[in-house]
Amino acid sequence: MTYKLKQLAEQLNVKLHGDGNVVINSVASIDKATEGDISFISSARYVDSLRSTSASAVIIREDMLENTHVAALLVENPRATYARVVDLLYPQQQPEKGVHSTACIDKSAKISTSACIGANVVIEAGAEISDDAIIEAGCVIGKNSQIGKSTHLYPNVTVYYGCRIGEHCILHSSSVVGSDGFGFEFDKTEWLKIPQVGGVRIGNKVEIGACSVVDRGALNDTVIEEGVKLDNHVQIAHNVHVGAHTVMSRGVGVAGSTIIGKNCLIAGMVGIRDNIEIADNVTITAMTMVTSSIREAGSYSSPTPMDDTRSWRKNSVRFRQLDNMAKRIRELEKLIKNKG
Amino acid sequence: MTYKLKQLAEQLNVKLHGDGNVVINSVASIDKATEGDISFISSARYVDSLRSTSASAVIIREDMLENTHVAALLVENPRATYARVVDLLYPQQQPEKGVHSTACIDKSAKISTSACIGANVVIEAGAEISDDAIIEAGCVIGKNSQIGKSTHLYPNVTVYYGCRIGEHCILHSSSVVGSDGFGFEFDKTEWLKIPQVGGVRIGNKVEIGACSVVDRGALNDTVIEEGVKLDNHVQIAHNVHVGAHTVMSRGVGVAGSTIIGKNCLIAGMVGIRDNIEIADNVTITAMTMVTSSIREAGSYSSPTPMDDTRSWRKNSVRFRQLDNMAKRIRELEKLIKNKG
Amino acid sequence: MTYKLKQLAEQLNVKLHGDGNVVINSVASIDKATEGDISFISSARYVDSLRSTSASAVIIREDMLENTHVAALLVENPRATYARVVDLLYPQQQPEKGVHSTACIDKSAKISTSACIGANVVIEAGAEISDDAIIEAGCVIGKNSQIGKSTHLYPNVTVYYGCRIGEHCILHSSSVVGSDGFGFEFDKTEWLKIPQVGGVRIGNKVEIGACSVVDRGALNDTVIEEGVKLDNHVQIAHNVHVGAHTVMSRGVGVAGSTIIGKNCLIAGMVGIRDNIEIADNVTITAMTMVTSSIREAGSYSSPTPMDDTRSWRKNSVRFRQLDNMAKRIRELEKLIKNKG
Repeated sequence: MTYKLKQLAEQLNVKLHGDGNVVINSVASIDKATEGDISFISSARYVDSLRSTSASAVIIREDMLENTHVAALLVENPRATYARVVDLLYPQQQPEKGVHSTACIDKSAKISTSACIGANVVIEAGAEISDDAIIEAGCVIGKNSQIGKSTHLYPNVTVYYGCRIGEHCILHSSSVVGSDGFGFEFDKTEWLKIPQVGGVRIGNKVEIGACSVVDRGALNDTVIEEGVKLDNHVQIAHNVHVGAHTVMSRGVGVAGSTIIGKNCLIAGMVGIRDNIEIADNVTITAMTMVTSSIREAGSYSSPTPMDDTRSWRKNSVRFRQLDNMAKRIRELEKLIKNKG
Repeated sequence: MTYKLKQLAEQLNVKLHGDGNVVINSVASIDKATEGDISFISSARYVDSLRSTSASAVIIREDMLENTHVAALLVENPRATYARVVDLLYPQQQPEKGVHSTACIDKSAKISTSACIGANVVIEAGAEISDDAIIEAGCVIGKNSQIGKSTHLYPNVTVYYGCRIGEHCILHSSSVVGSDGFGFEFDKTEWLKIPQVGGVRIGNKVEIGACSVVDRGALNDTVIEEGVKLDNHVQIAHNVHVGAHTVMSRGVGVAGSTIIGKNCLIAGMVGIRDNIEIADNVTITAMTMVTSSIREAGSYSSPTPMDDTRSWRKNSVRFRQLDNMAKRIRELEKLIKNKG
Repeated sequence: MTYKLKQLAEQLNVKLHGDGNVVINSVASIDKATEGDISFISSARYVDSLRSTSASAVIIREDMLENTHVAALLVENPRATYARVVDLLYPQQQPEKGVHSTACIDKSAKISTSACIGANVVIEAGAEISDDAIIEAGCVIGKNSQIGKSTHLYPNVTVYYGCRIGEHCILHSSSVVGSDGFGFEFDKTEWLKIPQVGGVRIGNKVEIGACSVVDRGALNDTVIEEGVKLDNHVQIAHNVHVGAHTVMSRGVGVAGSTIIGKNCLIAGMVGIRDNIEIADNVTITAMTMVTSSIREAGSYSSPTPMDDTRSWRKNSVRFRQLDNMAKRIRELEKLIKNKG
């Protein structure tokens, strides 16, 4: 799409600086932008790039104004405005409304006339698909499950029976909602399956990445509150509760019945054990192992740092001697003191 | 479903205590249970909750009897009996037997008349689906693969050609059985693929989680023995052999040709290298890296513990100095001794 | 298939030693091989097995010749020749060319007449499937995406819109190409999605494992160069660039905008942070956390070694005291020196 800068300013209701008639048809990073591009900087660190940019316009905070020679949108959060500009310049093509002729819809399912149901989709008895929802090719929606308004399932997503997914959610391909929690009891000679009869409840504006899994509850529901964003390969086990607006990067695993607060930032490949609680506003850095509750907001970490393999080998064998080393230091301290 | 307690006792062949006519129609945890609920405690830790529960009945060990005022089922393993009670109270609705009109079945495939084949399922030449098996929507079963009696594949599972899956297994959505093992040889300028011509053999009562993958063997079969339970995102590489009743939690990766014993408990996100052996009855705690064989039963671990990020930073940089620290302690010990 | 050894030598253009008329119909490992088998050894370590093998023929380096009593193919890289022999002895059955009657193909899609399109495949508007490509059952190819010559998609793969996949690639089941990168900006009270409008570009001879994910770029493309091999459960985030012939084992995660060199070997469950650069010819050992750029070829590592859990507990708590320990050693050194 093509906009004049003043049109963008109007639509987004933000302050315009300079020539509102410059034509914008694409976005680019501040260093690579050329005529027709709009760009942004989110921090004063990029002020040199701002000064020398070839973009037709930029999105900046007002206090950066002296550093630009091109037209600008002046905003508090340039990256957020950038996201909205991208939405305008690159509108997503919506698939056609209606039910594809190859979809298998149980006659007791309720499908909104404004929903879009793709090829080979299967929707089982009692399921409900709300207004403007998009269910792409190959998705399967189990019995009595509900998909909220404007929620978008990309191809080959599976939602088991009895799950409720809110409005404006996005589920990426190969993700799974409602699979059995991992519950077994050893009974004499073998593992007995503990039936998983809870469901899954997902709030509005939740995004679930490709190949991510949200298991159903054992007895009560697994719950993901509104605004939660899960990257790819994330696992939410049975009866976990994830607080609103918490973000989990790729590969995070949360074990059963753990309760995670609101507005947490959990980096990639973090493992969180079962039956603990994480407070609101907790940050956990990448690849950390969380084995006990975190009661206070703050940042938490655990892994060891990278080194060249030769040095690492020498140091890492010493890890097994740490307790011994600590005791020997103590001993030395005593000896020295006694000789004092 | 609704049962009188005495009916549950009869069906499960366990000892009844108190009023057998109390009506049970659901399960709940000991603290939340109300009238109509049956609950259980698995350990004396919960004895206070047992004393104050509002459940209509409880499942307990006989030695807990003095602590309950409500009717009870008296058993050795309360959690196992609980699992069986859940099965009775919440019977899984079985999909209708027969082949859905949209399924594509090769005419050389053998499908039991008691099997259930869902919408858009694809079953290739020579495949066999046994009695009472359930193959849900969107699954693909490759050439000459066999699915055992009463095995249940949830939607969108893929089984490649030439794989044998036993009886009473459960495979969750987006899981994959029989994909190529990861075998390449660098040949002058590029990687040459080593064809993976083995298969996969999976015993009875195996459960495989959502988005888990079992690769086919390079030459011989990859083997998973009976009763093994794999959580979500688990990877079993080519020619791995997993012993009976071993359990792997979410995200475990086992590399090629490794042999894992029976009755092992492998916690979440453990990585196990290729071409090693793990004995029977081994426990490996979460996020451990296993780089050599484990010859004896026992519990094994490796990662570092979580701390607040500021403290962690200070300590973690010291990890690279461990060998140096160890040598300096040795040096100090010598100096002190010499001065002795 | 059955070959005389001299036929194999001719077809592969390698040197024959001994009886070219021995009949070969299968491969087996050097210890297990019997009549009709061909085997190989890749290292002098297996010379005893070579001497005692019951194989009908072996593939060896010429300098091993004195240790064999059976017919042989003499080559520089026995494993590479073995891979080619497997290809000859176990030819993959190709599915029938043409479009399955249940496939949904948009009329604006271009499908080569030599391509094979399986049951229930969905190919959207403007997509192109090149000569000899194989798209197995249940795959979905989004709008305007391109699948190169002889590329093979196993069942239930999803390729989003606007992605280009090269020639002779292999994509395994449940893998996903082109899902949204994980980009959000916190805007007052909630996360705002940053639209991901770049694509994915994958070179020739790339293999992508089961349940692996390659996200589309935020603005520019995510790029995987030719000959890259990705195992199962690998994640390539938005705008990552992976250099030619780099190999990533199972579970590796590469975060956004990171640039990885050519011919790297990245072992299982390695995590690589965003916005860094890894040089060519870098090896990273299993479960390493990479938090900064690697400028020089070499081998890099980070995790701690396994121990029995009891010892590990004692040592691992000391990890939190490392900085304190280091300072106390320094202090002791000073005290000793002063007493010198």
